[in-house]
Amino acid sequence: MSTPSPFFRLDGTDPNSQARAGTITTDHGTIPTPIFMPVGTQGAVKAMEHRSLRELDAAIILANTYHLYLRPGTEVLQAMGGLHRLANWERPILTDSGGFQVWSLRDLRSLSEKGAEFKSHLDGSRHLFTPESVVEIQRAIGSDLFMVLDECTNYPADHATAKASMEMTVRWAERSRRHHLESPFLYGHQQYQFAIGQGSTHADLRRDCMNALVDMDFDGYAIGGLSVGEPTEDMYAMTEVSTAIMPAHKPRYLMGVGTPENILTAIGLGVDMFDCVMPTRNARNGTIFTTKGRFNARNARWKTSNEPIDDAVGCWTSENTSMAYLRHLFVANEILGLMLATMQNVALYLWLVRTAREKILEGTYRQWAAETIEQLNRPRD
Amino acid sequence: MSTPSPFFRLDGTDPNSQARAGTITTDHGTIPTPIFMPVGTQGAVKAMEHRSLRELDAAIILANTYHLYLRPGTEVLQAMGGLHRLANWERPILTDSGGFQVWSLRDLRSLSEKGAEFKSHLDGSRHLFTPESVVEIQRAIGSDLFMVLDECTNYPADHATAKASMEMTVRWAERSRRHHLESPFLYGHQQYQFAIGQGSTHADLRRDCMNALVDMDFDGYAIGGLSVGEPTEDMYAMTEVSTAIMPAHKPRYLMGVGTPENILTAIGLGVDMFDCVMPTRNARNGTIFTTKGRFNARNARWKTSNEPIDDAVGCWTSENTSMAYLRHLFVANEILGLMLATMQNVALYLWLVRTAREKILEGTYRQWAAETIEQLNRPRD
Repeated sequence: MSTPSPFFRLDGTDPNSQARAGTITTDHGTIPTPIFMPVGTQGAVKAMEHRSLRELDAAIILANTYHLYLRPGTEVLQAMGGLHRLANWERPILTDSGGFQVWSLRDLRSLSEKGAEFKSHLDGSRHLFTPESVVEIQRAIGSDLFMVLDECTNYPADHATAKASMEMTVRWAERSRRHHLESPFLYGHQQYQFAIGQGSTHADLRRDCMNALVDMDFDGYAIGGLSVGEPTEDMYAMTEVSTAIMPAHKPRYLMGVGTPENILTAIGLGVDMFDCVMPTRNARNGTIFTTKGRFNARNARWKTSNEPIDDAVGCWTSENTSMAYLRHLFVANEILGLMLATMQNVALYLWLVRTAREKILEGTYRQWAAETIEQLNRPRD
Repeated sequence: MSTPSPFFRLDGTDPNSQARAGTITTDHGTIPTPIFMPVGTQGAVKAMEHRSLRELDAAIILANTYHLYLRPGTEVLQAMGGLHRLANWERPILTDSGGFQVWSLRDLRSLSEKGAEFKSHLDGSRHLFTPESVVEIQRAIGSDLFMVLDECTNYPADHATAKASMEMTVRWAERSRRHHLESPFLYGHQQYQFAIGQGSTHADLRRDCMNALVDMDFDGYAIGGLSVGEPTEDMYAMTEVSTAIMPAHKPRYLMGVGTPENILTAIGLGVDMFDCVMPTRNARNGTIFTTKGRFNARNARWKTSNEPIDDAVGCWTSENTSMAYLRHLFVANEILGLMLATMQNVALYLWLVRTAREKILEGTYRQWAAETIEQLNRPRD
């Protein structure tokens, strides 16, 4: 008889950094870490077919509680047996709590101890998210990994403001954890709950918050409230302060980050999981990431370039599409341009974390990451 | 030693209609007829990957001379070695001449014996298409099958107007044919030239036009100037008048038509080739054609429908996508909705002509077509 796999297993660590390789096991499959989760806010990665995601070895996608709650709504999700079945996506799904989206609504929301009241960005209708209701919605979605409701602190925030906000996040986390442990799963598969650390750019608050959350024994831990306007150095510093406290035997997730450079740096600081709209959103704007550097798809210099978009990230389409054709599609406003650009950027991000994992297990991560950052950051020539 | 394949071979005819099954052979592959050509105006079928077209057995796509002349332009096309190489589409391509697009510009064009002068819809710049220059542009594109410049007669047109217009089309066709036979191919592969019959809804003019064109010994013959507002019965009548004259050993193409019903009816009148924006354009508007009938993707009745979009047209994606998910994607304005809808509609059209061919070869076309028209026209329930 074999022992059941633990939720998270540490497969190796890099000798010259805090980078880790691990495996998350869910009822919908395993996730090798470090991992990048393509963003499928409304249950679909924009301009990308599921099968392309499968072919590029996307082990997990991210969806959003706020958006799915509004459309298609929990009634539809429950009738369909959850998002996996609605979307026919059989691999793991992580859902963000909607805390960040409610925070982004600014003038349309008001927060209290009870929860976050907001007006829908679609029709202005009034809604209340509580730590408990957000667990319920994520029950209906049926995501494998899900986030607690948190308050994303405004940036900048003075110490007192950041402290008060962080403390509410901690109290909400406690209610979330209790409700999660008391309420049943709807679809038979296990759901794992992640807490989110806040504390703005104040190291002591970040520490206090994470310590309090660790005591509540969540399945995983995330770092939230970053990439909201603070200097990159602060983002890295707050990440390092947080990973130092996060338990080694649980997955660590830096939310909403970032550029390839941000991701490689944060992996070196001990982070396992990432999501960001950058690869998909930038693709639609014509900014393409490749192993030969970044470029703008509309640039006239690609007019007659026979070069493939990228032949090193394991994407058949990128290997078989010329720069000239991609440029033509963007200049001519063809949807196919958005599709091919998205595929390349997602392929690049997935190649990035897949290779990072290999290098961690080989013990050569640090050197490789430094070279790769230099390689990806340069403009393509 | 085997005899080289003829450009067009007749494989069979239906005993109870004028429907024919044939094979067109080009240097980029063979095309079984009847065939539907998905429209890739600017060298890309809107919202559809090439590999999806290949998987659905699209034997040929259509592109447009007017659009490709403006973007990316003949210089780029020539530098890249033609559209096949630019787009990495290795199967046959047919290009329309741009006559119809220039005609659609209305206030931006003026026609004379010399050719059609027009202002670009993109930047207002002035251009002249002549029968000869349109051959040259299609040399640069490198399409396998291409159309002469014609004058699409306005509808309605009295006999005198339609006659004068048709006669110019005939004179232009003569210049086109001469220029084609005198000028070399640019990329080594053979290019075949099709003439376009005009004559509005006047049967005698249609006959005179087609007879004159047949005398010029083109590689194939098309029926143009239909589907421009005339009653459907007139469209069928003019089609029948034309196919009666078109030589049996050459392919016959009804341009810009139409609904599945139009296509099946015209196949019964002896037409081999079709193109239309309907499957792709309607898909993006949420009108989906399936073997179970038509539906609007946004309709609330699909909210929780587990049914696949269509499991009878040989499209993996349609078999594995629920009506509920498609509806959610349309309601949420996801690009993936356009992609999946396009794939289904193109799959349906290609299934339609593929099956038509089987039924013609079996000798059961007429009965099958009548049943299929009824089946596809009903609203899905």
